[in-house]
Amino acid sequence: MPAERPLLGAIEAGGTKFVLGVGDGPDAIIEQMQIPTRDPETTLAETVAFFRKHAGLAAIGIGSFGPLERNRDAAKWGHILATPKPGWSDCDLAGSIARTFGLPVGFDTDVNAAALAEARRGAARDAKVSVYVTIGTGIGGGVIADGQIIGGTGHPELGHMRPRRAADDRDFGGTCPFHGDCLEGLASGPAIIARWGQSLSHLAPDHEAHAIIAGYLAEMCNSVRATLAPDAIVLGGGVMGTPGLFERIVAEASARDGGYFALSANQVIRRPALGPISGLAGAFLLAADLLQD
Amino acid sequence: MPAERPLLGAIEAGGTKFVLGVGDGPDAIIEQMQIPTRDPETTLAETVAFFRKHAGLAAIGIGSFGPLERNRDAAKWGHILATPKPGWSDCDLAGSIARTFGLPVGFDTDVNAAALAEARRGAARDAKVSVYVTIGTGIGGGVIADGQIIGGTGHPELGHMRPRRAADDRDFGGTCPFHGDCLEGLASGPAIIARWGQSLSHLAPDHEAHAIIAGYLAEMCNSVRATLAPDAIVLGGGVMGTPGLFERIVAEASARDGGYFALSANQVIRRPALGPISGLAGAFLLAADLLQD
Repeated sequence: MPAERPLLGAIEAGGTKFVLGVGDGPDAIIEQMQIPTRDPETTLAETVAFFRKHAGLAAIGIGSFGPLERNRDAAKWGHILATPKPGWSDCDLAGSIARTFGLPVGFDTDVNAAALAEARRGAARDAKVSVYVTIGTGIGGGVIADGQIIGGTGHPELGHMRPRRAADDRDFGGTCPFHGDCLEGLASGPAIIARWGQSLSHLAPDHEAHAIIAGYLAEMCNSVRATLAPDAIVLGGGVMGTPGLFERIVAEASARDGGYFALSANQVIRRPALGPISGLAGAFLLAADLLQD
Repeated sequence: MPAERPLLGAIEAGGTKFVLGVGDGPDAIIEQMQIPTRDPETTLAETVAFFRKHAGLAAIGIGSFGPLERNRDAAKWGHILATPKPGWSDCDLAGSIARTFGLPVGFDTDVNAAALAEARRGAARDAKVSVYVTIGTGIGGGVIADGQIIGGTGHPELGHMRPRRAADDRDFGGTCPFHGDCLEGLASGPAIIARWGQSLSHLAPDHEAHAIIAGYLAEMCNSVRATLAPDAIVLGGGVMGTPGLFERIVAEASARDGGYFALSANQVIRRPALGPISGLAGAFLLAADLLQD
């Protein structure tokens, strides 16, 4: 490790808040600030003002809400794509930061950034292949192999897979405007509230919702295991804060896998190690990677 | 390219036949032979006899039926794992070839080998991330990113994901001894014959089977798209020889994706370019990769 590490900027650009950081890396944050996500102009102006306080930044990493264009070869690289969030569709988030500061900017989804952080520094440190899934306001996933984000032209949209519906649970139509009862339409925080009027953690421990949601998330885990055979699937996000949910998911995934996979559900499915800072930590790693080789 | 390329051996080790090849690479095969898969002793003796005819081999690649141990750090590297195929469980396929010839041996699943060949030389040449799926006696998949097989401790078992059952098709219990109506239990060649008494290509074009099977394979494609956002999903294997099936799958995947993914079903879902030689071609690439760096 060099005696002086370059100073990095990091942005976790979320739908409700931007978390901004400056430091030598995710383990050496010098200053951190949070601002509400308003219109792009206001939000970007506050973001720029934060980084202007820190001279000598070498690179900035951004983990952002999506959908977004992560492909560096694309004309729209750095842009938010079509989003229901007012004003943000087609916003050139990464490009405007890059031009303002004249710095290299790393840009990926917030989930890919968190996945990178959990793989390099967190719960999947020992894994050659890992998947990070966040279950909260939305559901998203990121895939890491050998410490690198796996991605082609687009980025994963794990929330939009369609889990098998339970035999006794086929009436709820789901809340996804695109797919109805895809995973996000069934098991995201808003879907749970739309269906049962409360968040999962506020429903009584014997409420049917716990088994139903655990079942759908177990189906997702097993589908990911079949597709990729990851060494680790890390489950984060607000919904996962529900007491007992993690254990239920592991038990359901195990009960449904027929003992068929090389690794057991118990080995593969994991709690996050970095918690809420994984997105910002990943944004630091996106910045640091620009200074490699 | 050097004037003389090293001579390579390749084995596509299938459940019913072994295809053996010697050449400078998949595009320069000097001799190729096919032998029936019998007990391991007989089959390996015939395999060894074939390669003994060729002096100067530099490496041998094996793409094999599974389940198998592909992890080089594992004690059982090179072995077939628990398989219903009589005599083959725990057979040290790669190790015995390596010891017999004193050569470096590459070893992976037949599907990963085919995926590698389609990604480097075939239908997914332009793709940064691609998935190859074979739908035949079994259903399997392999994932390639930047020309390399993505894999951790295990290997994908794509046939064992559980697609959502169609609303009007929930009675057939499926044929998978582990999971019943997983994808392989519903849409593999033997599952189709068990259900309708004939292979898909022998059932009349207006038979319900065509829509049902296309629907399950479309569900699989969309689940893989959600998980990985691949640039290409290449569909091979005997069942895909059914006239009209490919078009039905693309149409169904498109109808069900809600226009949500960055790439359309039509761009992503592809026919193989290498056809039945993809497994052997991939075995050559596994051998060639051992001689890199």
